[in-house]
Amino acid sequence: MTYHIHFNKPYFTGKEGQYILDAVQTGKISGNGKYTLLCHEFLQHRYGFKKCLLTTSCTDALEMAAILLNIQPGDEVIMPAYTFVSTANAFVLRGAKIVFADSGSENPNMDVDRIEELINEKTVAIVVVHYAGIVCNMDKVMQLSSKYDLKVIEDAAQAIESFYINKKGDKKALGSIGHMAAFSFHETKNIISGEGGMLVINDPQFEKRAEIIWEKGTNRSAFFRGEVDKYNWVDIGSSFLPSDIIAAFLYAQLEQIETIQAKRLEIWNHYYTGLKYLEEENMISLPVIPRHATNNAHMFYIVCKSPEIRDGLITFLKSRGILTVFHYLSLHKSPFYEPKHDGRHLEWSDLYSERLVRLPMYFELSDDQVQQIINSIKDFFYKK
Amino acid sequence: MTYHIHFNKPYFTGKEGQYILDAVQTGKISGNGKYTLLCHEFLQHRYGFKKCLLTTSCTDALEMAAILLNIQPGDEVIMPAYTFVSTANAFVLRGAKIVFADSGSENPNMDVDRIEELINEKTVAIVVVHYAGIVCNMDKVMQLSSKYDLKVIEDAAQAIESFYINKKGDKKALGSIGHMAAFSFHETKNIISGEGGMLVINDPQFEKRAEIIWEKGTNRSAFFRGEVDKYNWVDIGSSFLPSDIIAAFLYAQLEQIETIQAKRLEIWNHYYTGLKYLEEENMISLPVIPRHATNNAHMFYIVCKSPEIRDGLITFLKSRGILTVFHYLSLHKSPFYEPKHDGRHLEWSDLYSERLVRLPMYFELSDDQVQQIINSIKDFFYKK
Repeated sequence: MTYHIHFNKPYFTGKEGQYILDAVQTGKISGNGKYTLLCHEFLQHRYGFKKCLLTTSCTDALEMAAILLNIQPGDEVIMPAYTFVSTANAFVLRGAKIVFADSGSENPNMDVDRIEELINEKTVAIVVVHYAGIVCNMDKVMQLSSKYDLKVIEDAAQAIESFYINKKGDKKALGSIGHMAAFSFHETKNIISGEGGMLVINDPQFEKRAEIIWEKGTNRSAFFRGEVDKYNWVDIGSSFLPSDIIAAFLYAQLEQIETIQAKRLEIWNHYYTGLKYLEEENMISLPVIPRHATNNAHMFYIVCKSPEIRDGLITFLKSRGILTVFHYLSLHKSPFYEPKHDGRHLEWSDLYSERLVRLPMYFELSDDQVQQIINSIKDFFYKK
Repeated sequence: MTYHIHFNKPYFTGKEGQYILDAVQTGKISGNGKYTLLCHEFLQHRYGFKKCLLTTSCTDALEMAAILLNIQPGDEVIMPAYTFVSTANAFVLRGAKIVFADSGSENPNMDVDRIEELINEKTVAIVVVHYAGIVCNMDKVMQLSSKYDLKVIEDAAQAIESFYINKKGDKKALGSIGHMAAFSFHETKNIISGEGGMLVINDPQFEKRAEIIWEKGTNRSAFFRGEVDKYNWVDIGSSFLPSDIIAAFLYAQLEQIETIQAKRLEIWNHYYTGLKYLEEENMISLPVIPRHATNNAHMFYIVCKSPEIRDGLITFLKSRGILTVFHYLSLHKSPFYEPKHDGRHLEWSDLYSERLVRLPMYFELSDDQVQQIINSIKDFFYKK
């Protein structure tokens, strides 16, 4: 099958090659080079993050968070079942038991009103996933964090350039609210480096150790700042740093963030306007952006009325040469975790798993193509 | 301090940018794309590796090996104390106890005649580090592996394009002998991608699970081959795949491997010839290449007669604008592992730690520069 409209296409701003060559010419293309520092500064400044550390993936950023939380076998971590495997894997690798929460009816985010019932004396952290870059009620999550002394990790893989708006109307960047946050720059994200990620550390107690874990368990960063006279093995750790080639690519993207975001929002709004009628006719559901959230146009998804309709729609669009995809298989039902899950039925997680479909979304998608997708979806529902 | 001769300078073949742009144009720059496959094929074919999987670092390749060996808390792993932290960290992350072996008198590799005394019923693996790309007596190591049913992991970080020659005179590429092997493409290596690595799987029993662990614990690879109808969370794992941007960069390097190796060997031989006299005068020791080993010119090091002379030499060369470096701090004496070490004195490991110095070694180093370094070393020893 050849698709004439792909699901994703990585965007090339044009400056990536130049910056990579420049990185080579600086004489340092391993981790923590010139472009890594430029990315850190850009992101800290733009979003008010306390400390950024680029990683080779969002998965790796989550693994760093799990190590920093000093997760021990038996510790419990609460997170949505409707998420990518890495959200859970990072904590499972340190021996945690995952307690899966259900999504809400409004969107696939965790139902924050039903988190408290999952907390017990073994709970150490809540991992909030900002699905499609849309935030849940973080005031409620942070209140639980204070009440039960739990750490909050934001899985902000999809959430760059998205914000939380509190009751007073103050805007805070996603990733700046929890104790730590993990971002992704995977090729399917708004800002990309093929594979890539970043850990954000907002709670200063984790800053020093984060640098050590990032640098393979050594105090190399302190050494280069002249704080210790040789660098040594002082802790567990891994090689979490990406090549400066990756950072150079990423920096070219970050410089274009406003252009990229404007285009993605235009596509998102085109979809929304074009498909609104189908929602009004009760044929599909469209994303809901709550009052406390902004939209970063990471993803455009629709929710069908049954799994059969969803699968039929994907097949129909495929016959028109349009690639659409579904995800996630609920993690509590995965071959790996089902035997370890406590058996609770997670109705909404299963519903999104069976009925959600993601439409093509990338910078180079033209108005005509978006309109063609909208028309094809209408054709499917009106059996044309 | 400005150095006019650096310790390392990453080499750019000229085709990296073109291949990266091509990767972008294929529409896939995440892991396991076109250039990842090209690198896998190139390396499997050239070295007779059974299966290659690029990783984001050699550290990550070692971590994959530790997961594949199913290391459990309390399992013992034997490895040299004179190595980079990642050799050990990868196994410590899975709960292993590290049993550090001493180096030999001939070169910093493990003294293979003293491995057997470290084996007990808890031992599960021997990690051999091919220091400076020079191999130890692998026949002896593989005999121990058979006798005690131990797995052998080759830490081949420095060992690309180097070979083991057995008694019959047969040559085998380093990385093709043990059950698994880990390579590095860090910017200081012969073939580079800034940060980067590769796991080699020679024992077919690990192949299938390796792909799963590589893909975040999912059966995604099998899914794309059509072996399963959807991909799912089936095991622990991480995001070990590098971006195809990294693979594109690496492929440009691999294509030039013979040119790169020829130049490095020329530099190595220049150093060796130029410094031989100092060894004959018993002022320094030069690297020994045993009859069973080839030389890939990864590194040129000299061993001084005392720590004071070593430190004096580094300082002297620095005053001449030449950057030389030492390594490693013996891991059994590190702040992290000393309290866990069994107290054995590791004489040779400490000796190399205190007396070894690495000289500049990179493609663009000119004959004149090498001669200048040789002359400066002679000046130091003859107090000029």
